[in-house]
Amino acid sequence: MTPYKVGILGATGMVGQRLVERLVRHPWFEISALCASERSTGRRYADAARWSLSSDPPPSAAALVLRACRPQELMDCDLVVSGLDAAIALEVERDCAQAGFAVVSNSSAHRKDADVPLLVPEVNAAHLDLIALQKRSTGGGFIVTNPNCSVTGLALALAPLHRAYGVRRTIVATLQALSGAGLEGPRGIDLVDNVLPYIPGEEEKIQDELGKILGRTAGDGIEPAPVQVSAHCHRVGTLDGHLEAVSVELGRDASPEAAAEVLAGFTGDVHGLGLPSAPEHPIVVRSEPDRPQPRLDREAGGGMSVVVGRLRRCPVLTLRMVILSHNTVRGAAGATVLNAELLAARGLIPRRARP
Amino acid sequence: MTPYKVGILGATGMVGQRLVERLVRHPWFEISALCASERSTGRRYADAARWSLSSDPPPSAAALVLRACRPQELMDCDLVVSGLDAAIALEVERDCAQAGFAVVSNSSAHRKDADVPLLVPEVNAAHLDLIALQKRSTGGGFIVTNPNCSVTGLALALAPLHRAYGVRRTIVATLQALSGAGLEGPRGIDLVDNVLPYIPGEEEKIQDELGKILGRTAGDGIEPAPVQVSAHCHRVGTLDGHLEAVSVELGRDASPEAAAEVLAGFTGDVHGLGLPSAPEHPIVVRSEPDRPQPRLDREAGGGMSVVVGRLRRCPVLTLRMVILSHNTVRGAAGATVLNAELLAARGLIPRRARP
Amino acid sequence: MTPYKVGILGATGMVGQRLVERLVRHPWFEISALCASERSTGRRYADAARWSLSSDPPPSAAALVLRACRPQELMDCDLVVSGLDAAIALEVERDCAQAGFAVVSNSSAHRKDADVPLLVPEVNAAHLDLIALQKRSTGGGFIVTNPNCSVTGLALALAPLHRAYGVRRTIVATLQALSGAGLEGPRGIDLVDNVLPYIPGEEEKIQDELGKILGRTAGDGIEPAPVQVSAHCHRVGTLDGHLEAVSVELGRDASPEAAAEVLAGFTGDVHGLGLPSAPEHPIVVRSEPDRPQPRLDREAGGGMSVVVGRLRRCPVLTLRMVILSHNTVRGAAGATVLNAELLAARGLIPRRARP
Amino acid sequence: MTPYKVGILGATGMVGQRLVERLVRHPWFEISALCASERSTGRRYADAARWSLSSDPPPSAAALVLRACRPQELMDCDLVVSGLDAAIALEVERDCAQAGFAVVSNSSAHRKDADVPLLVPEVNAAHLDLIALQKRSTGGGFIVTNPNCSVTGLALALAPLHRAYGVRRTIVATLQALSGAGLEGPRGIDLVDNVLPYIPGEEEKIQDELGKILGRTAGDGIEPAPVQVSAHCHRVGTLDGHLEAVSVELGRDASPEAAAEVLAGFTGDVHGLGLPSAPEHPIVVRSEPDRPQPRLDREAGGGMSVVVGRLRRCPVLTLRMVILSHNTVRGAAGATVLNAELLAARGLIPRRARP
Repeated sequence: MTPYKVGILGATGMVGQRLVERLVRHPWFEISALCASERSTGRRYADAARWSLSSDPPPSAAALVLRACRPQELMDCDLVVSGLDAAIALEVERDCAQAGFAVVSNSSAHRKDADVPLLVPEVNAAHLDLIALQKRSTGGGFIVTNPNCSVTGLALALAPLHRAYGVRRTIVATLQALSGAGLEGPRGIDLVDNVLPYIPGEEEKIQDELGKILGRTAGDGIEPAPVQVSAHCHRVGTLDGHLEAVSVELGRDASPEAAAEVLAGFTGDVHGLGLPSAPEHPIVVRSEPDRPQPRLDREAGGGMSVVVGRLRRCPVLTLRMVILSHNTVRGAAGATVLNAELLAARGLIPRRARP
Repeated sequence: MTPYKVGILGATGMVGQRLVERLVRHPWFEISALCASERSTGRRYADAARWSLSSDPPPSAAALVLRACRPQELMDCDLVVSGLDAAIALEVERDCAQAGFAVVSNSSAHRKDADVPLLVPEVNAAHLDLIALQKRSTGGGFIVTNPNCSVTGLALALAPLHRAYGVRRTIVATLQALSGAGLEGPRGIDLVDNVLPYIPGEEEKIQDELGKILGRTAGDGIEPAPVQVSAHCHRVGTLDGHLEAVSVELGRDASPEAAAEVLAGFTGDVHGLGLPSAPEHPIVVRSEPDRPQPRLDREAGGGMSVVVGRLRRCPVLTLRMVILSHNTVRGAAGATVLNAELLAARGLIPRRARP
Repeated sequence: MTPYKVGILGATGMVGQRLVERLVRHPWFEISALCASERSTGRRYADAARWSLSSDPPPSAAALVLRACRPQELMDCDLVVSGLDAAIALEVERDCAQAGFAVVSNSSAHRKDADVPLLVPEVNAAHLDLIALQKRSTGGGFIVTNPNCSVTGLALALAPLHRAYGVRRTIVATLQALSGAGLEGPRGIDLVDNVLPYIPGEEEKIQDELGKILGRTAGDGIEPAPVQVSAHCHRVGTLDGHLEAVSVELGRDASPEAAAEVLAGFTGDVHGLGLPSAPEHPIVVRSEPDRPQPRLDREAGGGMSVVVGRLRRCPVLTLRMVILSHNTVRGAAGATVLNAELLAARGLIPRRARP
Repeated sequence: MTPYKVGILGATGMVGQRLVERLVRHPWFEISALCASERSTGRRYADAARWSLSSDPPPSAAALVLRACRPQELMDCDLVVSGLDAAIALEVERDCAQAGFAVVSNSSAHRKDADVPLLVPEVNAAHLDLIALQKRSTGGGFIVTNPNCSVTGLALALAPLHRAYGVRRTIVATLQALSGAGLEGPRGIDLVDNVLPYIPGEEEKIQDELGKILGRTAGDGIEPAPVQVSAHCHRVGTLDGHLEAVSVELGRDASPEAAAEVLAGFTGDVHGLGLPSAPEHPIVVRSEPDRPQPRLDREAGGGMSVVVGRLRRCPVLTLRMVILSHNTVRGAAGATVLNAELLAARGLIPRRARP
């Protein structure tokens, strides 16, 4: 297969770096353009990006000259993936869709749009039906988004329980890693001997997005699942890996053992499609009393598996558990790439004519 | 007033050090004996204790020679305060009570005993009535305990809400400091870029103790409050200060504003008694979106106030909030000393005849 | 004594907060004005300052309305203390001196000026003679500075050795705390599982300032001590307390024991003057193999003592040791206030006529 | 080539785990036996080892049953690699050598033995000549060691300078990672907001080992290089990667630029041998002002390259620089495996007859 040529929007940020890392040797995609804000345009990627994943950016990406975030700059691309901040993403992504691009975004800008899939492939691949709606107005381009980094793990872990028992209510407390705040996150001095019990906008995102993800296609849109969600968000001094303490009320009773079996047996909607980023086990269930732990378990399934542990009865709701997912992989760049892979497998990425 | 002479059991441990710190210049008490395990007996306190609170232990304590944890070693004391581990405390504290001592303990060994008060003075001073029961069998000595370090803050914050609205159910996720694990807590290597989603026995303690604390005296005992409690406990890399994310279901609806007023206005059962360790405001309510924070707020009220912030509606239960309390002060040594002060103010500490 | 009225320049920054903390209940000084950058002018201190030392700023300071950093705003003050950044301090401090104020500054802007004392009172109180020089051109005002936070501890520890044996050469590696970088220091994500082997400008400051501090008055100026200095600076994830590993070549041989005696016996030039911030022991020598440690020892002498440990022979130079000093107290605000105290004790602060 | 069968002594410790990780899929070696202390003997490796590198130990190792650390247990092995603690290694390793095994050890037990090579292959492959001496008394077996984790990086970085200019004296301050202290290292509570300025025995090892590594074969032994070494060792809260601030006096002057060229051009004594663990560049020189940093640079060359940065003149000695090496890879398990590879390439590992 000829690789799809990809343009990355917001390539210098934390999520952008992870997108570069995951696409630079991808079997189906080839990085064609790296785009960033005006102050970086025209500079080599290696010079403009404060690379934070390891010693140096991959050589082939390092040498690329940064372009502006505009559809006109992407004319050699088939596909646009976006790690942009929401404020900028709102217009740029819409412009790219209008220009006929398939836009696969990590940004929150369009997640709530009625015609934009909020996609977790294992959970709601059927939501891709919304693309047809978008195409009516764009003539071909469209936007697909992935959820907030702290929702993805939660949605994946609750989806099998929702299918098996129904999920009515959930209370989740998060211990979120610093990479989730990007390169310009909290100062070191505010984190020594401390945790921050507040992440602006995060609790609302968790509460808003879960229902849409677990919802079902109905007529032209998505009917959200009627799940009540209460989120308590904390920033802690870990590098990667959002840990979540979850209590959940199910539609009917389930023992921890039965739930563990349901979770461990979950294969999801894209099993067998051969998507390169899809983990063999979307959910890994651990039985030790003190797992998952961020440093030990965040790389499970190449960072794409959600790890669930401490499944036990909840004295207030039905069950409780600890969930871990790699926030910049499964919760961001890995999710974006997996979404792009699903589009490719479904033949939904238009190849653009090139001179 | 002639100070009461105090013996400290378990004086070399983390809680023991805090007891020494709080008693060494106390207006009502005077340290008479420091007791530790057999391997330290006979050594100077400064040599045997790995002092972890600052440069050096207070000079007057530093010079004391450690004694064994036995009633016979405490004959020059009026009062015994205990920072012992539960396994050792079980017998030693009972022996001391049998020998006629007032024993004020931080240990969990006797917290569930039907005739032992699980005391938070502002909340349940009336539980001291249980002492009379104990005296029937001991002839004079008795044990008073304070709750687990992560329950104390929760109990203090919920007590005014329980009085005003009734507390039916609560789900709490804790982010607990390292000092709560004592001097032999988790290794550094297990905490770098990590959090631990499990603290042995902690969730059970929270779930067991809250009802007793909020209970009422009934006949000869305490009738626990019928509160359902679900706890998710985490160890994080802070030094002091347990942070708790709490959702609570009340008996009737209350706005966050009304609840904030109830909390801020709470003075508690020992207001006006002049207890030296009693904070002017048992509960401090903060209105910033990102407070309380462990490093900034744990010293409120000299470490004896509980700080509550982020009071807001809970989409699943009634209200939610963030609670912070200093785990080795309000949650341990400070609580023990406050209990001793209440006993002294009530005239409940027998002065022992001395040669 | 009527307290001197003090204006604090740069009151909202990290050093400014420490200045407020140390002056708000000072027996000799009274805070009259708090000054900050234009964007904060006119706001209450409590609203404009992101207070980072504890729950809340002291009430009396909290209520003050911030003024601009100009001499005209300080007309109710006798004395100006400055926690300004160097770039701004350069002009503002000179303006204040020209306007007749005694300016006691923590900034690096004027440290190298030939007529400005770089004062560590215990070490070089005689350098105050330079003030007379400044007054010739200003007509009365003058500037006194304290050294960089990582030099102060080094200078204090080496001064007694310099007096006793001569210090020829020193190599110092620092492990510096985050508070030294101010409120806008490194991001948390750059410090997790990491240290930063570079602090812009810091090595040069150490290498430049030590000689002047240890220098002697000669004619109209200071003849620097001929000490060769090589500094390696690192930022680590501690909150307060700069730790320094020092090898030193002395003019003649000295055993570690003899040097320890010299250091422990050092009282310094201001002993007996009753300066409120002067520690009883400018240098505390510890004999444990693993001390000083930042968290345990930085508060020695109220944060004003330098703690020296691990004195031992150096296989390359003469001796080596570990030095710790509290960077925002002894190394900044405490040093500034101590300098102001010395000026007051010497009668060098002009009382300004007030309407 | 038929793989050599390897037995790992001390397989459950931190270094042992790294040995397993590096040998489990090694092209030349095959893990045949995992050995540990008596309390683990007979248990599955996955059950006995507290695996700390990621989620789970490699499946093929996980299933192995632990054996005791005795030559009799290793009869199916060609080669013994050892991650044992020094106290136990002393006798066990000698026994294995006496039994005819090639023993490749990370332990410090035999590093100073006159007939045991202290091997850094790129630097002193010629020291393998010592093996012949050992064989005289054992009849075939022998011990080869690698240096202490904080010496290896230093030796590698100084070796090219030593060859080019002569190294006379060096002062090194280390900021060492927690993994260097093993699984039973310092407690978390001693590392929060703190660094430890002491690592038992570490400074002596650096001072003792460097001369032997840089020494030359002379007659039957090694004549140490006459390098004076002064080490200041610190434990900081990083996971992996020892950072070292180094000042060095050379035999003749060299500019930082010239030295950088010498370092970057160093290929070492085993270049071209195709040793699987030998990095393409033994030394990576970085030119940014703030590198190397542990988290970003420790994986250079698969953790086997030493990264040198901040090369600049030293005002006291000749040059100074910052050195980083991965302590449990280049400084321990990776070094051990590289030594084994060199032995294999040289045909120095006796194949043992097997039934």
